[in-house]
Amino acid sequence: MKHNFGPGPCILPQEVFKQASQAVLNFNDTGLSILEISHRTPEFESVVDESVRLVKELLNVPEGYSIIFLQGGASLQFSMVPMNLLPDGKSAAYLDTGVWASKALKEAKIIGNVNVVASSKEANYTFIPKDFEVPADSAYFHTTSNNTIYGTEMYEFPKTSVPLVCDMSSDIFSRVINVADFGLIYAGAQKNIGPAGATLVIVKDELLDKSGRKLPSMLDYKVQVDGGSMYNTPPVFSIYVSMLNLRWLKSKGGVADIEKENIAKARALYEEIDRNPLFKGTCKVEDRSRMNVCFVMENPELEKPFLKFAEDRDIIGIKGHRSVGGFRASMYNALPITSVHTLIDAMQDFAEKHK
Amino acid sequence: MKHNFGPGPCILPQEVFKQASQAVLNFNDTGLSILEISHRTPEFESVVDESVRLVKELLNVPEGYSIIFLQGGASLQFSMVPMNLLPDGKSAAYLDTGVWASKALKEAKIIGNVNVVASSKEANYTFIPKDFEVPADSAYFHTTSNNTIYGTEMYEFPKTSVPLVCDMSSDIFSRVINVADFGLIYAGAQKNIGPAGATLVIVKDELLDKSGRKLPSMLDYKVQVDGGSMYNTPPVFSIYVSMLNLRWLKSKGGVADIEKENIAKARALYEEIDRNPLFKGTCKVEDRSRMNVCFVMENPELEKPFLKFAEDRDIIGIKGHRSVGGFRASMYNALPITSVHTLIDAMQDFAEKHK
Repeated sequence: MKHNFGPGPCILPQEVFKQASQAVLNFNDTGLSILEISHRTPEFESVVDESVRLVKELLNVPEGYSIIFLQGGASLQFSMVPMNLLPDGKSAAYLDTGVWASKALKEAKIIGNVNVVASSKEANYTFIPKDFEVPADSAYFHTTSNNTIYGTEMYEFPKTSVPLVCDMSSDIFSRVINVADFGLIYAGAQKNIGPAGATLVIVKDELLDKSGRKLPSMLDYKVQVDGGSMYNTPPVFSIYVSMLNLRWLKSKGGVADIEKENIAKARALYEEIDRNPLFKGTCKVEDRSRMNVCFVMENPELEKPFLKFAEDRDIIGIKGHRSVGGFRASMYNALPITSVHTLIDAMQDFAEKHK
Repeated sequence: MKHNFGPGPCILPQEVFKQASQAVLNFNDTGLSILEISHRTPEFESVVDESVRLVKELLNVPEGYSIIFLQGGASLQFSMVPMNLLPDGKSAAYLDTGVWASKALKEAKIIGNVNVVASSKEANYTFIPKDFEVPADSAYFHTTSNNTIYGTEMYEFPKTSVPLVCDMSSDIFSRVINVADFGLIYAGAQKNIGPAGATLVIVKDELLDKSGRKLPSMLDYKVQVDGGSMYNTPPVFSIYVSMLNLRWLKSKGGVADIEKENIAKARALYEEIDRNPLFKGTCKVEDRSRMNVCFVMENPELEKPFLKFAEDRDIIGIKGHRSVGGFRASMYNALPITSVHTLIDAMQDFAEKHK
């Protein structure tokens, strides 16, 4: 078995792979593949319904919010958010905490006025800025809850009177959040939701249809909400596997329970990074992500050999992003703690060899 | 075995389902699921490369065109086409041949000026208009090669000096086309390409970056072409299964050979419709689609009983769209001719019972 620490598309539970594989041959004993059924069949409609119900239940989504599955990933949301929520003449506030946050604000600037309230770019995004003010007349305030590339995570969201928008692509369903604090949450599926090809959006109904813009139907949240994720043919298989994965999460006890596991996994690895003289973390300790653990070696020349050493133990996907270098161990929900221990053992054995 | 005449998502070859099912468990002997591999691995990059090569080879795409896989289906192309090809102050010409053609032009109107050169709407889209003129100063001329709902197909494309844009969602890869006649071709995957979730775009390079608009990156063909279908995380599984399906098509002899089969399947069914006193076709004979065969019964009261009669023989997906009523037998590439004979037999046996 491989220990898949890849940053995304990423590991999903083995039992989800088994169920998905079976459904490609014969979906729900229909005698048809999940790949050939119409999205307008009662069988698939119930897949969408159950997916929406599971999101609602697992995240405790209050009344007054709509849950939809779209296409295009978080990258298309970078444009859909300002198209839908930023009226002409107003400004949107953005917090710049990494490459994706910075792409989000760059795309927003194509649509309207943007105000960057704080940025940690000068420090290569090694921390989450905390001293800033969100202008009270902002159309919304955009944040990125977890910065996959740099390995930082926001553990507190600022109180603000304007709608809080959050790109939760890489940590949604990994920890308890209070949805009521947010106006809009979006997330590409390919971390803790399901395979690439679907995008989850949770939007407060009162924010719909407010920009005053005449939008292309596909890019209009109102149209998509009214269409119940089926304004046009949805990404059938990605939604189906997302449902299987959310069922798995529920069977594991839900988000609060997986959060405990995620804390345990992250603690174990960060402790080793801090303890082992060969390695060091790259981020401010209080902002360290539980999903993406970034670290380098005191002696950079040992990085290639360690990568090879780890690969020989079936540890894959830990090469760091070129913006940071070193290593990034992504530890999404489905990564078992045994894989984390395998990595820690490798770090210890490698240190033993290089004393 | 079910005889799947569904209009889409639709039947794909059984061997594609088997290979796809296997790859969900173990992709290319990597020990990883196709659902958990990174799109940046050499293994997946070679999937994209092969998919593009197969499109190029099977459709004989000449030099000077780019081939990309996007998300959002044809419905998002309805907006991307005018965003990218229709400059302010110019007009785009549209041919209105059905619900999807009409949605395409409705979305274009949100972006710019649209000129509908002809429409068969008044006749419930039972034919393809042929007498019309495309203004020579049009930014492009938009057509829909096959009208899934109404069962008409364009067998000749008008010669015009302006770039020809075509929505080929429901008949691409079913017949030989001359790509050089077109400026841009797009198609949702979920008929003859692969499972829902991917969209194929073939675009003439000289049309890129010409609208003068500053577009959102995700909606800019130039950005997507430069990104090689990977500007952001692509719909990995849908592209992979599309590759498997295009491999299958190649192994069957390619588009010219499958076209012969499609002609034979369509001829057999239309002959039965014209011969059998209980049934009648709904479209002008010369415009009848090979992909979607629409027909009704002389006595509408027999339609429900026939639907049941057919279902008892494992014939599924033949209920007509509500805009037409009656029946629609969709006969995409992967539908074996034996399924068509099963349907014809059912029509004959039913007629025998209701003499």
